[in-house]
Amino acid sequence: MFVRLDHVGIVAPDLDEALKVFTDQLGLELDTDRSPLPDGVYFAPEGTHNYFLDVADGETQLEILVPDNTTSGVARYLAKNGPGLHHLAYQCVSIGDEADRLKAAGLDQIDFGPGDPDRLPAAFFHPKSVNGILTELVNVRE
Amino acid sequence: MFVRLDHVGIVAPDLDEALKVFTDQLGLELDTDRSPLPDGVYFAPEGTHNYFLDVADGETQLEILVPDNTTSGVARYLAKNGPGLHHLAYQCVSIGDEADRLKAAGLDQIDFGPGDPDRLPAAFFHPKSVNGILTELVNVRE
Repeated sequence: MFVRLDHVGIVAPDLDEALKVFTDQLGLELDTDRSPLPDGVYFAPEGTHNYFLDVADGETQLEILVPDNTTSGVARYLAKNGPGLHHLAYQCVSIGDEADRLKAAGLDQIDFGPGDPDRLPAAFFHPKSVNGILTELVNVRE
Repeated sequence: MFVRLDHVGIVAPDLDEALKVFTDQLGLELDTDRSPLPDGVYFAPEGTHNYFLDVADGETQLEILVPDNTTSGVARYLAKNGPGLHHLAYQCVSIGDEADRLKAAGLDQIDFGPGDPDRLPAAFFHPKSVNGILTELVNVRE
């Protein structure tokens, strides 16, 4: 089972404009321990800058995804759909066990090929098998 | 300031299919105290059935919105975008105070006209002013 909803992914074309909305106007707090994610982590592989925002300590965060090119999956999603909601991520004690559970239940895991063990792990499930929602599994946060 | 992210709104064409995904396959729990919302509450005014799902007790929920006609805003959103993510809702101690704060910060509140005082209160802000995200304010849950 999941521990909690870890974050809601949001695409934005420009970091400064997005931070104006989410920190200055809505009043959320940038989680500087997780922002920006270092390049090359497993769940930010495609030239995307990732920033996390707290609404309440230790609970569900927002993740702002800002592409730095026009060819990545996130950039193409943004070009097609405009700024807005992008994915949901659930916290797990064991990503592997939870991914196996969801596959056994009939959901379609996205195969990114062999992972780099130095990158932060995650697993993704195809939106078509999850009511149109790109679904991510991540580790419990420290 | 907000208390927490209350819920993530999700549109779905069919309740049974959505519950299969979110309860049977993902393993979330239907919050039977809030599901379905009674007809005519302020934030479900348009022929939409609303069901809440727990990921973790007392934390951010998912809200499944299933339209029962083809003309409501939710039905038109579903026809245009397909099933998927729809809105974010933040919990407030005072919806009025928070709505005033967001308006003063430059966000655009949606005017639904005079509310029925017997309906559950909420306030909505236009996606165009919130990075493409329909944004809702709701009361802290009991």
